[in-house]
Amino acid sequence: MAEEKLPTRAENFAEWYNQLVLKAELADYAPVRGCMVVRPYGWTLWENITAALDKRFRETGHVNAAFPTLIPMSFFEKEKEHVEGFSPELAVVTHGGGEKLEEPLVVRPTSETIIGYMYAKWIKSWRDLPVLINQWGSVLRWELRTKLFLRTAEFYWQEGHTAHATKEEAMEEMYRILDVYADFAINEAALPVIKGRKSESEKFAGAQITTSIEGMMQDKRALQSATSHYFGQNFAKAFEIQFVDQNNTLQFCETTSWGLSTRVIGAIIMTHGDDQGLVLPPRLAPIQAIIIPIYKNDAEKSKVMEVADRVFKELKAAGIRIKMDDRENVSSGFKFNDWEMRGVPVRVEIGPKDVEKGSVALARRDKPGREGKSFVPQTGLASTISLLLSEVQSSMLTKATANRDANIHDPKDYEELKKVVQDGWAFSYWCGSRECEAKVKEDTKATTRNMPLEGQPAEAGKCIVCGEKAEKKIYFAKAY
Amino acid sequence: MAEEKLPTRAENFAEWYNQLVLKAELADYAPVRGCMVVRPYGWTLWENITAALDKRFRETGHVNAAFPTLIPMSFFEKEKEHVEGFSPELAVVTHGGGEKLEEPLVVRPTSETIIGYMYAKWIKSWRDLPVLINQWGSVLRWELRTKLFLRTAEFYWQEGHTAHATKEEAMEEMYRILDVYADFAINEAALPVIKGRKSESEKFAGAQITTSIEGMMQDKRALQSATSHYFGQNFAKAFEIQFVDQNNTLQFCETTSWGLSTRVIGAIIMTHGDDQGLVLPPRLAPIQAIIIPIYKNDAEKSKVMEVADRVFKELKAAGIRIKMDDRENVSSGFKFNDWEMRGVPVRVEIGPKDVEKGSVALARRDKPGREGKSFVPQTGLASTISLLLSEVQSSMLTKATANRDANIHDPKDYEELKKVVQDGWAFSYWCGSRECEAKVKEDTKATTRNMPLEGQPAEAGKCIVCGEKAEKKIYFAKAY
Repeated sequence: MAEEKLPTRAENFAEWYNQLVLKAELADYAPVRGCMVVRPYGWTLWENITAALDKRFRETGHVNAAFPTLIPMSFFEKEKEHVEGFSPELAVVTHGGGEKLEEPLVVRPTSETIIGYMYAKWIKSWRDLPVLINQWGSVLRWELRTKLFLRTAEFYWQEGHTAHATKEEAMEEMYRILDVYADFAINEAALPVIKGRKSESEKFAGAQITTSIEGMMQDKRALQSATSHYFGQNFAKAFEIQFVDQNNTLQFCETTSWGLSTRVIGAIIMTHGDDQGLVLPPRLAPIQAIIIPIYKNDAEKSKVMEVADRVFKELKAAGIRIKMDDRENVSSGFKFNDWEMRGVPVRVEIGPKDVEKGSVALARRDKPGREGKSFVPQTGLASTISLLLSEVQSSMLTKATANRDANIHDPKDYEELKKVVQDGWAFSYWCGSRECEAKVKEDTKATTRNMPLEGQPAEAGKCIVCGEKAEKKIYFAKAY
Repeated sequence: MAEEKLPTRAENFAEWYNQLVLKAELADYAPVRGCMVVRPYGWTLWENITAALDKRFRETGHVNAAFPTLIPMSFFEKEKEHVEGFSPELAVVTHGGGEKLEEPLVVRPTSETIIGYMYAKWIKSWRDLPVLINQWGSVLRWELRTKLFLRTAEFYWQEGHTAHATKEEAMEEMYRILDVYADFAINEAALPVIKGRKSESEKFAGAQITTSIEGMMQDKRALQSATSHYFGQNFAKAFEIQFVDQNNTLQFCETTSWGLSTRVIGAIIMTHGDDQGLVLPPRLAPIQAIIIPIYKNDAEKSKVMEVADRVFKELKAAGIRIKMDDRENVSSGFKFNDWEMRGVPVRVEIGPKDVEKGSVALARRDKPGREGKSFVPQTGLASTISLLLSEVQSSMLTKATANRDANIHDPKDYEELKKVVQDGWAFSYWCGSRECEAKVKEDTKATTRNMPLEGQPAEAGKCIVCGEKAEKKIYFAKAY
């Protein structure tokens, strides 16, 4: 219910977020520390995200499978960096069926190890390659500071794991998936993310290369929205994933993994939301249009509902995700606020005058007030609304892109960098050293986000921190 | 690969099953005792099952959500029968983030408790009811004797959990879902299951009424293929799921739960499979038709492949799940066996003569040899194959139904019952006492399956075990 007002974003962005997630019934806190319940409205949003991604994974030749939730503890010890990265975050099963287990089992924090073990069993020859498997599920990482969707002990995601004959193919796969993620984020979620390569210190535990898509939230903080990793032969050697090549020689595979999680829901909320609540991109919104019939008495009601019912059927038949709010116990004003808060892209109002005129009033969520309002004929309404949904979708992307670009700075020196990262991103030359990264973090709390694949200058420059030669520019920003 | 022959069903049904699951690459053993990996072919089958069920759940007003994998141990202790039933099977997390937990957490074996806890938080008024939520996921039960799909420590399923204002509505919900399960099983999986009520001793831990669908496998053993439970106010009282009714009085909700799991894949395999391998119902088969181009030399190849490619595109465009086997390193005979083993409903052979005649050869999986073979024109092939797939689907159901009915017996006395349950089911009057059930189990290893909702005699009779008055008949059978 929408009785209590949210704090504004300007007042308290963090509290605006927390309250909105609860109030819009996207998620709730679970009775286990750090875990969340994803409620039906939030889960439908996630289902729409999964459908959009799954389609892209299939089109690029991937298949789904399911690997166990529990992994023997010893598996983690086979890849040195992997165990160092994950051991502080593990949830450990020590008892099963009333008895103490001989070997503790870990609730998976990620599945490279167990999938590596199975790939070693399945892959024999070059004819078995590539193996391109994805898994939808949840994983558990014992996080101390949690925030719904952004950082929870258990979260939902997909993790792709692929094995290839050559480095070239594995690298191609890593970038192919990074493109899939960016395409999804930009064209489905209206998130103008930036594709790039992570620094050594920000890599995934066990990866040789980690790439990411990074988005800018309205508070200017960065959110890593998905990652795609190249492992070289690290996991193949740890798990003996080998194949006989065309020359009959035994070789180690080259592997990748990549994941996108329910974090992206946080990105959608924080990129598009306003002080009234969620603003959901039409392509992913659980409800794309809400019909609100408006009447004062039974005579008006019967006329209005006749039209509202017909409109509902027409829009549904046209494949629009439509809902009618015919609640009797709340006012129209309450309904307007309620569905605005839930981020439904288009509101369809039908009152007695609309019945007379053969019109309806449309209000688009992304443009509040008069500006977003139009009065259109009932005839052809399905195509009018379809067009409007496309318009809202592209307009949301344009707005988010403009906001991002307005807040990316090119500081002239380190002093300016320190200032700009307090309320924006810096895009600066960086020499590649851990020391310079660490200094920025120490001085400003900003971290390196990624070295973008596109938009790098043609020539080398000087590191913004130490002044040494630097080949590439990187984004520095405070991040979630 | 299909080089090694399966044992026949007559030789060793259990081994036929185990080897077939591995060989058809449906699933594999995981390195954690009792767990399985569902491989892409098996997972695609499961995805088709989930899509068919999910559609039915939505049509009956249900929505999906996600609740945590970990549940505080204390939650299980709130419902007495529930904890007794599940405590021997629990996997327990005692450590998280490197520290011993204050309260152990259980990897969910089923989610009544945690969902009950959340419902108590969400439900306030009669206006919030009914709550109709389903969850797709996996659960863990520490099983000692495991068998892929049929009984594994971790398995995949859906669990629906609903809360209602009245007993009547909750009972209706239980039966509505039982109908959904039966409709799915019969019309999608070609499994002629029987809907009925379980005995007191076979109920779910904590339920007041458990209903099930039961299927007969080819070895005559029964497989409980899904269950739907009515809890009364048991869980509502344990978790304080209460609402204010229309008279402003605080009431406890009435709740239900219901589940169908990857076990149903076992039912599909054991109901329809033959000595050559799987026979998959077309509506669920990952691949509905496999094209096998046949040629001896490059000249033939170019002619045949031209037609094969065109046919592939046409069938794909018509929405048929089609695959082309254009492997060069194996013979056509090998391919025939391989796809038969994998249960693809229809094989499309295209050779040089077919190219000349404008025909293709079709072979249906459910009728081996000559009987299942036909030669049809390339023109209109998509609709020919669509019709054939429907024909295969209904013919599989007819065959399974005939097999089931031929093996259900009406023994005249207890001596005969003891005989018939060795290789079939008995459908007999039962007085309802635990003692009579226990005696049958002791003497024959057969258990009560369910009291069917349909097909009960109009009049009471005498219990087949003790001779006392019995209102209803029940199925006795050995079961998985």
